[in-house]
Amino acid sequence: MCVVRVVAEEGAVSPVTEEERTLINNGMLSEDHRLACSTAVLGDVTVEVPPESRRGRQRLQTEGLETHVPLDSAVVKLTIRVKAASISDPRSDEERTLQALADEGHSGLRLSLGAARRLPSALREGGWTITATVIGGRVIDVEPDETRERMYGVAIDLGTTKLASYLLDLNDGGLLAAESMMNPQIPFGDDIISRITHIIEERDGLEELREAIVDGVNDMLGRLCERSEVRAEEVYEAAVVGNTAMHHIFLGIPPEALARSPYAPAVSRPLDVGTGAVGIRMNPGGNVHALPVIAGFVGSDCIAGILATGVHRSREVSFLIDVGTNTEIVVGNEEGLAACSCASGPAFEGAHIAHGMRAASGAIERLRIDGATLEAEYQTIDDAEPLGICGSGIVDALAEMLRTGVVDSAGRIGKGFENSRVRVGPDGMEFVLAEAGETATGRDIVVTQGDVMELLKAKAAMYSGASILMDHLGLGTDSVERVYLAGAFGSYLDPGSARTIGMFPEFPLGRIRQVGNSAGTGARMALLSREARGEAEELREKVTYVELASHPGFGREYARALFLPHMELGRFPVTVGKLRGEGFRQDQGSR
Amino acid sequence: MCVVRVVAEEGAVSPVTEEERTLINNGMLSEDHRLACSTAVLGDVTVEVPPESRRGRQRLQTEGLETHVPLDSAVVKLTIRVKAASISDPRSDEERTLQALADEGHSGLRLSLGAARRLPSALREGGWTITATVIGGRVIDVEPDETRERMYGVAIDLGTTKLASYLLDLNDGGLLAAESMMNPQIPFGDDIISRITHIIEERDGLEELREAIVDGVNDMLGRLCERSEVRAEEVYEAAVVGNTAMHHIFLGIPPEALARSPYAPAVSRPLDVGTGAVGIRMNPGGNVHALPVIAGFVGSDCIAGILATGVHRSREVSFLIDVGTNTEIVVGNEEGLAACSCASGPAFEGAHIAHGMRAASGAIERLRIDGATLEAEYQTIDDAEPLGICGSGIVDALAEMLRTGVVDSAGRIGKGFENSRVRVGPDGMEFVLAEAGETATGRDIVVTQGDVMELLKAKAAMYSGASILMDHLGLGTDSVERVYLAGAFGSYLDPGSARTIGMFPEFPLGRIRQVGNSAGTGARMALLSREARGEAEELREKVTYVELASHPGFGREYARALFLPHMELGRFPVTVGKLRGEGFRQDQGSR
Repeated sequence: MCVVRVVAEEGAVSPVTEEERTLINNGMLSEDHRLACSTAVLGDVTVEVPPESRRGRQRLQTEGLETHVPLDSAVVKLTIRVKAASISDPRSDEERTLQALADEGHSGLRLSLGAARRLPSALREGGWTITATVIGGRVIDVEPDETRERMYGVAIDLGTTKLASYLLDLNDGGLLAAESMMNPQIPFGDDIISRITHIIEERDGLEELREAIVDGVNDMLGRLCERSEVRAEEVYEAAVVGNTAMHHIFLGIPPEALARSPYAPAVSRPLDVGTGAVGIRMNPGGNVHALPVIAGFVGSDCIAGILATGVHRSREVSFLIDVGTNTEIVVGNEEGLAACSCASGPAFEGAHIAHGMRAASGAIERLRIDGATLEAEYQTIDDAEPLGICGSGIVDALAEMLRTGVVDSAGRIGKGFENSRVRVGPDGMEFVLAEAGETATGRDIVVTQGDVMELLKAKAAMYSGASILMDHLGLGTDSVERVYLAGAFGSYLDPGSARTIGMFPEFPLGRIRQVGNSAGTGARMALLSREARGEAEELREKVTYVELASHPGFGREYARALFLPHMELGRFPVTVGKLRGEGFRQDQGSR
Repeated sequence: MCVVRVVAEEGAVSPVTEEERTLINNGMLSEDHRLACSTAVLGDVTVEVPPESRRGRQRLQTEGLETHVPLDSAVVKLTIRVKAASISDPRSDEERTLQALADEGHSGLRLSLGAARRLPSALREGGWTITATVIGGRVIDVEPDETRERMYGVAIDLGTTKLASYLLDLNDGGLLAAESMMNPQIPFGDDIISRITHIIEERDGLEELREAIVDGVNDMLGRLCERSEVRAEEVYEAAVVGNTAMHHIFLGIPPEALARSPYAPAVSRPLDVGTGAVGIRMNPGGNVHALPVIAGFVGSDCIAGILATGVHRSREVSFLIDVGTNTEIVVGNEEGLAACSCASGPAFEGAHIAHGMRAASGAIERLRIDGATLEAEYQTIDDAEPLGICGSGIVDALAEMLRTGVVDSAGRIGKGFENSRVRVGPDGMEFVLAEAGETATGRDIVVTQGDVMELLKAKAAMYSGASILMDHLGLGTDSVERVYLAGAFGSYLDPGSARTIGMFPEFPLGRIRQVGNSAGTGARMALLSREARGEAEELREKVTYVELASHPGFGREYARALFLPHMELGRFPVTVGKLRGEGFRQDQGSR
């Protein structure tokens, strides 16, 4: 339970102990993992607590990076003492309130209609002391008495599969609670294209999908408020990120054009919209800030990820890979950034895989195959009897099958094994991960030849995207100093396994950071900081979008990435070096 | 049918003919009335067509002054050709649209959510040609193709008793149609105070009253659109004026404080509010502009009246008297203005008068009493059998009763007449205007001693307000060069009769203009011109509000104005000079 992954320069942690060395030699621990109980911190280190060391059932990603932004919320609360009306001074409530605000240094404000409606009773209930809530030059609400300490906001990340939300205290930036849920649009289609198809085919399709996601957000917000003892009226602002389709649907903007070349978004600039127009149950005068999007398949979640990782502010060249059904990749530094979107498909989320499943109880999430017996030692979510394989498990499986020679570099499951775990199944060759006697289903859990092909397509799409972006900026693997893996899957997978199968160029493992839901983190930053919003707006224009589908090099690059780890083995010298000491079988196509 | 009132300098019209002289001598025509058929125009003149010379049944005032404003609407329609999206240029629809607008010189715009929602289909239906509707830097709607010629707005005047509305073409300022109706709030109370009492006493009172008036406005707007073949979506802006209570209720702003000293309004600055928040059925992205108010009982209708008459732009000192249940009086010129509100009560609208009625079919609206026989020669609306007396009739009646000595200068109906028309009735002395045999009710129509007292209170309130404002600015009667009488009643009454009873200081009749619904005219100006809105905003601060209730001179001034025409006869030398040649009876209190 105390295994952690330590990313550190030489000498920043105490040397590996004898006990750890034994575990490593026995394959129980990998090179960059340490026992927290035996490791002393001597300098700056990054410690990642892997899923298997975490308690509880929560597998939806709501953690993410810690935010480091100057607190500079768009919402301000001002408590003022207003001069009472009298026969000699019968000015309007509005006039004397704006005067009192001006006397405190806040001039040029105006009242929203909602605030105007509440002003007379607030002034009289509060004995002429009120607290005004101001957003962007407008007083959007007034309350009797002093209520400055009650000021909250919500950051929302709209994923195709999952929704995440974070309730923040706008006075100190503190996180009060996080909630997540499956996207209630899933019944309308697992992926974006099928949902857009629903919108095209059904008269009220857009409204159905919009209501579904808004209801979901309202459910989460209700739970956040209840858990934190915050009233909905005290939530004054929402910052929303999502992929472009989710962004459009949430705002009720037709997304049809996203399904057709040239995949142009309807809108791309940041939008500030009244609560009522969107239907979020928070303060009725509140503001919903939707961050900008870059392209039809590079959304505001990607911009938020950049904000969260600071790729755009760093001198170092960094990669940001947000793995999902669509994987967005960003590469660059303060001088410039390029982004693309890869149709990596749903294989990493367990779909289109024979025994694939989502990351839920009973999913095999980690495994290691014994080179001699081909028996798999695995770990399941909640330590339940195995039910299937989730994304991180399937990546481990493929990496281990490659290491042990169960598949060759072309992804073919070998036929010559004298081992019952490699066999001919109903759909061709397959490899048995768990036998019927040990599974919850009472049937073998296997990886089929078809599964391997799905995974090859998915990882080839990601690799080619990364490779083309590097070409675009004229970068070699060595010049990339930081690689951020984001998203739930990106944070749970084993980076070593991912690199072994060639999911991305062969970056040194020490440069890889798993950053959780960076989109959610970026949304939180935008909620807390107007400066961050300004950066997001700049990023919309600063990031060069590279369209892979029409890129001349894409087809060739993709075909070459359909090998394990790659057709050109020279691109993966370290990986191939390690594999050659094991059961690695090179196909003739690889060179 | 061709009698008109001519206001002209000496020599601007041909001399009075013999035929006219005969009619004048016989009392059929008054001094400033002419026969249109016999009068030649020789210079600049103002011709007023009095109600009795007008055709038709319409008696709600929707005419008003002609507007003369530079056309400078807040709404702009721009037709643009947008570059189509392509693989090499997959920018968002928003981006390319805003670029096309910038290329035409309109940069810095942003899209409303509503426009964003309609943009994708508008671009594609219009073959990448669209028309954008812009209000204040925001694109609030987009339509396929070229639709610039379809751009409309509505000006709305919310009176306690009546609502009036005007549909204007924002491309040329032309009036397409006008509509008016009784205020649907009347079932909740005839006057403002009883409606506010309803709001105080009933839980949903404000919402009930708000819905009533908004429904009324929507009914009118529906008729305006239907008559003019305009779609509701093509009405992009509304400019709204009203007294302060109507202004507040229409916007859903609690008006309770208006019923209690110090009568402070909740809001006083101009408000721009989305259509949806108010509930007006026009373009959902449209703007409702509520003009500012000056005080609890000097509303935006008064500001609109100033705009319409140009009192604030003139070197001449002018009076503006908008007669109603509350009469607002403004006096001043370009250098400064003062305003007050007089509780003139509903007598002039026929209420609290024994045989009083609204200006509807069968109301006696004009009359003359024969000095010898005391028989009244009268005219009714629609020439119907008389049913009662409306405001203009009651003012004529009192002036004529004074002229013929039926009442003395203290307002007492004389007892010594040997004429059956002056008699003791059930409630004291009364004067018979029309006998049972000639009326629609089969009963005598009379003016009672109580009626005279109601009228004295009403006219005394108006006179004292005017007098105190003049004192406030240090003005004498001679320095007032223009007097505007506004409002339905102010426009239908006979200015000579009004002056005879001392409703206002003794201004020369030639300086009096009856300007109809000047509030509606001002609303139309604000709809057409941003400059006019700017002036309205300035007027809010430029006009000094004089509170009569707390003014030290008010009680004395009011008491002295309870005489006919005034306790100090020296204030009405011309009137008294004329009266003395007739049956005028001076009470000892007058001097």
